Formats: sequence, structure tokens, C-alpha cells
Amino acid sequence: MQKYILKIKCSDEKGLIYRVSDVIFKHRLNIETNNEFVDKENNRFFMRAELSGELNIGEFCGVLEAVLPSDAEISCLAKAKKDIIVLATKETHCLGDLLIKFDSGELNANIVAVVANHEILRSLVERFNIPFHVVSAEGMSREDHEDAVLEVMSQYKFDYAILAKYMRILTPKFVNAYPQKIINIHHSFLPAFIGANPYKQAYERGVKIIGATAHFVNDNLDEGPIITQDVIHVNHEMSWQDMQRAGRTCEKSVLSKALDLAFDDRLFINENKVIVF
Amino acid sequence: MQKYILKIKCSDEKGLIYRVSDVIFKHRLNIETNNEFVDKENNRFFMRAELSGELNIGEFCGVLEAVLPSDAEISCLAKAKKDIIVLATKETHCLGDLLIKFDSGELNANIVAVVANHEILRSLVERFNIPFHVVSAEGMSREDHEDAVLEVMSQYKFDYAILAKYMRILTPKFVNAYPQKIINIHHSFLPAFIGANPYKQAYERGVKIIGATAHFVNDNLDEGPIITQDVIHVNHEMSWQDMQRAGRTCEKSVLSKALDLAFDDRLFINENKVIVF
Amino acid sequence: MQKYILKIKCSDEKGLIYRVSDVIFKHRLNIETNNEFVDKENNRFFMRAELSGELNIGEFCGVLEAVLPSDAEISCLAKAKKDIIVLATKETHCLGDLLIKFDSGELNANIVAVVANHEILRSLVERFNIPFHVVSAEGMSREDHEDAVLEVMSQYKFDYAILAKYMRILTPKFVNAYPQKIINIHHSFLPAFIGANPYKQAYERGVKIIGATAHFVNDNLDEGPIITQDVIHVNHEMSWQDMQRAGRTCEKSVLSKALDLAFDDRLFINENKVIVF
Amino acid sequence: MQKYILKIKCSDEKGLIYRVSDVIFKHRLNIETNNEFVDKENNRFFMRAELSGELNIGEFCGVLEAVLPSDAEISCLAKAKKDIIVLATKETHCLGDLLIKFDSGELNANIVAVVANHEILRSLVERFNIPFHVVSAEGMSREDHEDAVLEVMSQYKFDYAILAKYMRILTPKFVNAYPQKIINIHHSFLPAFIGANPYKQAYERGVKIIGATAHFVNDNLDEGPIITQDVIHVNHEMSWQDMQRAGRTCEKSVLSKALDLAFDDRLFINENKVIVF
Repeated sequence: MQKYILKIKCSDEKGLIYRVSDVIFKHRLNIETNNEFVDKENNRFFMRAELSGELNIGEFCGVLEAVLPSDAEISCLAKAKKDIIVLATKETHCLGDLLIKFDSGELNANIVAVVANHEILRSLVERFNIPFHVVSAEGMSREDHEDAVLEVMSQYKFDYAILAKYMRILTPKFVNAYPQKIINIHHSFLPAFIGANPYKQAYERGVKIIGATAHFVNDNLDEGPIITQDVIHVNHEMSWQDMQRAGRTCEKSVLSKALDLAFDDRLFINENKVIVF
Repeated sequence: MQKYILKIKCSDEKGLIYRVSDVIFKHRLNIETNNEFVDKENNRFFMRAELSGELNIGEFCGVLEAVLPSDAEISCLAKAKKDIIVLATKETHCLGDLLIKFDSGELNANIVAVVANHEILRSLVERFNIPFHVVSAEGMSREDHEDAVLEVMSQYKFDYAILAKYMRILTPKFVNAYPQKIINIHHSFLPAFIGANPYKQAYERGVKIIGATAHFVNDNLDEGPIITQDVIHVNHEMSWQDMQRAGRTCEKSVLSKALDLAFDDRLFINENKVIVF
Repeated sequence: MQKYILKIKCSDEKGLIYRVSDVIFKHRLNIETNNEFVDKENNRFFMRAELSGELNIGEFCGVLEAVLPSDAEISCLAKAKKDIIVLATKETHCLGDLLIKFDSGELNANIVAVVANHEILRSLVERFNIPFHVVSAEGMSREDHEDAVLEVMSQYKFDYAILAKYMRILTPKFVNAYPQKIINIHHSFLPAFIGANPYKQAYERGVKIIGATAHFVNDNLDEGPIITQDVIHVNHEMSWQDMQRAGRTCEKSVLSKALDLAFDDRLFINENKVIVF
Repeated sequence: MQKYILKIKCSDEKGLIYRVSDVIFKHRLNIETNNEFVDKENNRFFMRAELSGELNIGEFCGVLEAVLPSDAEISCLAKAKKDIIVLATKETHCLGDLLIKFDSGELNANIVAVVANHEILRSLVERFNIPFHVVSAEGMSREDHEDAVLEVMSQYKFDYAILAKYMRILTPKFVNAYPQKIINIHHSFLPAFIGANPYKQAYERGVKIIGATAHFVNDNLDEGPIITQDVIHVNHEMSWQDMQRAGRTCEKSVLSKALDLAFDDRLFINENKVIVF
């Protein structure tokens, strides 16, 4: 039996679960797992179900559309690995983690290519037989550099673009080229320490925890919808470089968890928040 | 509008969510939140929904019963504070936490009485105008002592009996007097360090984490279904008494979380496991 | 044998540990535990030792002073419970936690009085036979209210003033009346969500972790040196009120841990940071 | 200036810190950081210091030996990367993490070789230009297989042998070939779930946390001195395979932390416990 993931987002009304489960039942599908959430503030209904059975997806979505509010966004996909492109700069911890998991089949995604603004990661990436592109930013305006990166990206089909410590500030143009498809790992527990060198900021403030945040990227730097966050404890003996080193484990695991959720279609963006099923 | 909590447990079949949501819809109830889980190993279906509207509970449950498998256990309750009885011995951290929360209205329960096997807690409990009973175990057989405790308990109506560091081993007779109603806090991350003085055991083994476990009590000591667990980090500088002191914060918060869940009707016992919605 | 806690803070130089341990050795004292830290950025040396033996503290400190740099701050105290005064407003979770621990002897401090700006906590505090003072802020300027609170505080001798959810902004005058002696619990992982209602801010930002921060209070609101911090995970189902409720456990345990450290003389303020031994 | 790490372990006596710091001072060394611990139960003194300056190590250790108790174990090493050999079976998460860190220079160690009992990891390891040896256990007695592995290991010089999910039970002979040099990652929070398939055991017990333990290996399986442990939360929706997948992140970070400590010479084995400075 095939497995499908159904995602629905629409205005809330009485009877939505009844109507959806009616359609599912009449298509003789099993509901393997099922999650709903109602955002009462904004009167929005969210639902994710894993279904098993035999299905004509187009017909099924059409029937659902007919019984749901007119603003309903319906997605139904056969369960499958996602395609992703990874952007990076020089650091290997997040990228390397993805490469190892991809290579062993543990990642629920195929890495179609890695794009970097430096050469340094080439040797590592190519060992895994993944196309590696360098688009150096040297001597280029931000806009020209981004255009060149977008040009490279446009050669690939992918579901998500992962910024695995891609140390470039993005313009709205870049972000809007792939709306809701770009996931970044930020090296602080946002909204603390927005901007450059969060570990140095953390060190200077004398905090006792540092963290990492995986988030969707939108127009406002470091203000995109947050997917996952975690922290580790630090102490007065640590320099900011020590914090940076210790923080890498946190960055790696926070990004990894966010990607597992994204690749499993467990995320809904709801305004500036993320619903995680 | 009144709020209700509906809990259903039955054999799994296709169409259960459809049938239940149909009944809910036809009773013009809103589904505020909704959780389902299917235990495939044992083919069991679990559902919890918070509903709002106007309801004749008896009629509603009757209609549900008619559409569900014959082994269905259905509970529908108007949302309300639980009544609890607390058993304790000498330590104040878990009991005190309950008293403070009860006193400020933060606890989703009324403490109807405290029963202890020592006098030492009387002064504390009575300050909160809660009946306090001592049943000393001195010079009594375990069975006689338990009978005396059960006799005191029988004077009260309660939904749960909370063992807030009640340092007595219970016989099956005692446990079976209140099946699925007794919740204990154990001072280790079970199944590690079953039995007496887990902190001493932990110290002697040289572990780097210690923990606490809140669980339903069944016939087998320290083997009841686990509700919540958590741990804290320890180090070589700590004596077992230091670990015990540090562990109290963990015991307190683990029990507190388990009780919040229990009092909100978020728990299902499924064989020797607990489903937490 | 008596136990002593020795704390030294001075400019760093070669041979400090040698000189101090020489003095300790010649006074026939045992070093039970010993911690040092050198802040290289600021060339500062910090040391804390627990000593046991028989000691004329004045003479001992005099000898140490003679062998240490001229800017040395030396403190040597016989191990003893601290005296504390607690300021609160309406919430019971942090205050109640202190009261329960104080009552059972677990707190390494005596609560000499509680001062609040509302009546609501009187009943709770007086049950523990602790003097309770209300200084209502109604109809008073901030300055006048603070003067009245300081007047009450001046009647007591205490080592620390604990702001156990005292929901008043403090003026520099107030803070400077008790330099390095005021400890506050802030309901966010600072520096995130400075200012009013951090839980609402956290909810609106859509974070996946919330936290609490215990810190010394200085002139700049929410910018004092941080002692302890911790976080808990939250999710999209939680309203800001749910986060507030869940956060209380975190506030309570973060404050509790900070106070254990303070009362054990384990803290050094180093500019805007805290060294925790 | 060269950096050195000094480690001392001996019976406790009054004046040890004084004597050691006297020797350090007279050798004109700076003490960068310094940690001591006294195990009062067993009357043992432990000290680790990072020193900087110019040093004749042999002469320095000789002078120290003369002033310390006769049972003193003194080690003084110039700070340098360790050499390690890695043993693995089929899983890539711990091994891959080491390879990525080694490749980027983040690991404080050189991987001199990887030895496995299956072929499957060859392609991954050889991409990093590290010698890879397979010693299949098929058709061999445990003793013969171990002898063959020891034979391969004997070709290399290494400070530590890391069992990065090496799924073989070791005999005392093997363990005693490299006393205090073998570090293992166990996939449970020991002492819970000793033995085979801890994730399945955890699933069946219905725990709400699972964990990992890095420990030195001694004669008794799963009972060696514990270096680091950590846990993650799990829930009723997870199969044991889900727990295993989730647990990998924990295994990886627990091992990584333990190795950072070991490679920095921060560990002392004290009977069946580990002192972590």
C-alpha cells in the first residue's frame, strides 16, 4: 500500500474534521496518524494526516476542495524523499552532518548540489559525489553575487534550499525567489543576538546559555518563522571561541531536527510562526 | 458555553474518526483540540477531544457507543477541577509544591486531605487548612498499616491519590483498591536504580545524570506505567546527599508536570505504557 | 572543626596560588575544595576555597593581605546561613518555593521579612511566621514608594534582597542602596524579551523555547550580571498564558539554583558577568 | 611559550597544593587553569593544571615526585593532538562525526586508522584517506576474532581506541590489552538497559527519556567508568526504530563531548568513576 501525506490549511469552521474524515473514509483510506490545530486568534484550521491505501491524488483533492472553505490550501503527496540544495560558506559541521546522513541513507532527502561562496568545502563535498559550485562574492555587489547564485540554483529542481552556515546576508529578491523554501540555521537562540557574531555578543553579555535556531527565511534578517531551537549551558571559563566550538553541536542538532520535520511535511507556516506536527 | 473532555479507547477500525466527528458535528459541538493515536501493535485506538457547546452527556455517550466497537471505553466529563488525596512521609518538597499551587489556585485540583505515616508534616499541612491524618506504621504489620491508611482514605472522595514521596512499599491489595488512580514520584530515571536509596546507588555507580519518574502505581514496585521523566546533570564533586538535594527540584517538576497532565485528562494507560496527549 | 569560606579577587600575577596556599598551609588549615579563575582579558584573579581548621580570621586576612597585590579584595567567613529579605508582588511560585524550603531547613538562609506592594501574599507569608510588610504603590510616585520600601528594609539586617517576582521597575537610587546584594528573577532568557510581559513577546515571536534568568540587579534594567539561566520547550498549541504557567517552574528552579550558589558564597561579580564556582 | 598539561593523582595530605604550586612557581611557569579534587572517601587527591612557560619535563616531574607522596602518579605533557584508532561496525553517525571533525581540524586528535568487522564503512572512511581494515568475525571464535583485531591494532601507535558503535562484546583479554585507553559509546543511559538492543528495551518499558553513555571500557560489559551521559525525550508515538533514529543524535553528541574531554587530558579514572575537570 502506498502512503500519502495530506496537509490542509483553511479558515476554521464547525465540522471540518467530520468533512475531511468523511472524504478519507469514502476513499477507503486508512488514517495512520492525524494532527489538527486551530489558531483561534486568526481563525485558521491546520491538519496533517498520514494516509495509506490506493489513491488518485487529483480526484481526491478535488473532492476535498469541494467540501472545504474556498480559501483551503490542500496538499497531498505520496511519501517520498525531498530534493534539497545546500548553501554553505566555510564551516563543515552542519554540511558534514548532512553529507554523512545523506550518504548512509538516513536523510529523508537527496542533496542535488552544494553551492558555496568559497572553495574550501569542495574537497569534502566532491568526496560524496555531489555537484559543488563556487560563486565567489569577491569584487561583486551583493545583488550581482545573488544573481549568480540564483543562476546556479536555477539549474536544479529542489524542494528546499538549506543554508548550512551560509554566511551571507540575503536580499528580499533572493528570499522571494524561493518563498517558504529556504531554511537557515542561526547561531543564537533568536531573538537574542541578532546580527553578526552572536557568540561574541553572548560572551560579552555574560549569558549562561547559548543556543541555535532553525527558521524559514523571509524578508527580515533573523526574523523568519522559527522551526526548532535549543540551547546548551556555558560558563565563565569559556572564551567566545570556546562557545562557538561548543555551539556547533547545538547548531548541528537543531538544524538536523528542523530538516527531519520539514522533509516529513510536518511544518505549516502560520504568519510568522511555525506549526510543528 | 460549557467545555467537555471526551476520551475514547477501543479496537482500531477504519472510519473511527469519521464516525466520532460525525456524532460531534450532529451535536453541534465545537472541537477545540483533538488528538488521536493508534497503537498498531495492539490494534488499539485512542482519542481525546476538548469540545465546547451544550450537551446531554448521557445521551451523547449513548450515541457514540452505538457507532463504536463494542469494547469502546468512553468518558465524557465537563471540564472541572479534580479531587485528590496526598500521601506523604517526611519530605516537604513535593507536598509543599502542591500546597503552594493549590493555595494560589494554580493546581487544577482540590487537595481533600493529606495522609502521612509521620507527624512531622502536620504543622505545614494544617497551615493550609487541609485535613491531615497520621497513620503511624510503628509496631504494625505492613498489611495492618495499609488497612488503617485505606480506612482513612475511604472517608474521602477523590479522583487521584498522589504519593508525594510516600516512602512505603505498597502491597497489591492497596494498589488494587484504587486501580489507575495512584500516581507516584520515584527518585530515579526508571528503570535505573529500582529499590532503596536510588541517589546512593547513582553515586556509587558514578553516573553523570540523575533523574525522576512519575508513574502510575501497579502491582510491581517501580514498574508502573511511566507518565513523565526528566534528569539533571551531576558531577564527581557531589556526594549522594548533594545529589539527593539537587534531585528534589527534578522530582518536584516531574511530578508537577505529570499531575498537570492527569488533572487535564490527558493520559491513557495502554498496557504498561502511558499515552500522553 | 570550623569551616570557612575564603574568597579572593585581585590583579593576576605569577605565584598567587603559591602565596595563598603557603599562608593556608602555615595556618594548618585543610583545603576542602578550591577553585581559581583568571580573567585574562582584564587580568583579574579569582579564588574561592573551603577551609577547615581553627582560625583567627582577622589575623589570617592580614597575613594574606600582606602577600597579595594591593588591590586584593579578601573575604573569609565562617560557614553560616545567610539572612535574606524577600520582595514580592502577587505571584506565589517563587516566594512559596522559598517559604517551603526555609520552613524545612533546606534553604541555606533565614528569611527575615517579606515586603510586598500588595496585600494578597500576607496570608501565605504569615502562616510561616515571617514578618510581612505591605508598601502599596497606589497614588505614590516611584521615588516615594521606593523610599517607603527602603525604610522598611532598613529595619532589617540581611545579606541579600531577593526579588521573587517583584513587579516594579527600580531606580538607580534603590539599586545603589544595596550594591551587589539584590538578586532578581526575570521571566525570559535574557537578553531576549527585555521589558514588559516577556511571555507575550515570546508568544508573538513564535519561539520554541522560553526561559528564565536570575541576575544581580544593577542600574540598567534587565542588564545586570547573569547568575543562572534555563529554558523549557514550548509549542504552537500554547497561548502566552500557557507559556507563563509553564514558565513558572523554570523561574522557580532558576532562582532556586542561583540562590543556592549565592548563599554558598560561590559567586563573584566580574564587571557585568558572574563567575560561578 | 609552550603549553603543558600537568596531572597528579596521589594520597591526600595537607599542603599538597602548596607544595605543587611552590614547584610550579620556582620553575617560573604560569598556571593558566587549575583544578583540584579530593575524594574523601578514598583519601585521594587529583589535580590538573595547564601551565605555560619553558620546561624540562623530566627534571620538573622529578622535583614534583620528591615533594609528593610516594604513590603519586604524575603526568606532564606538552599540549598536542592525540592519536586515536576507531573501531566500528556498520553505523556511520558516530564515525562520520569523527571523520568530519578530523577532516576540518576540529578534532583534537589524529585518526590513525579505522578497524571494522564489516566492509560497509570502507568507502566512507577511505574518502578521508584514513587506513581502513576489515576483520570479519564470520566463522571465527570470539577469541580468534579479537586476536586478529589486536594484531591490526598493534600496527599503530595510539593514545585511545574509540568504539564508535562497535557492536561486539569484548573479552577481558581485549580490554586488558589497552587499559584505560578504550572509550565506548553505549546507546542507553546506563545502568538502564544494559545488554542487547537498549532502544527496544526502552520502547517496551515505555520510558519517556532515552539516552546515551560514553564510558571507559573495563572487564565488566557496560559497567566501565562513565564519562558523559545525556538524554532526549521520547513519546508514545515513537516505535523503537524511531527511538533509535532519534537516539543517534544523542549518541553522537555524548561521544563527541567525552572525546573532547579525553583528548584535552581532562579525565581521571578514580575506581569505577571518572573525575571530569
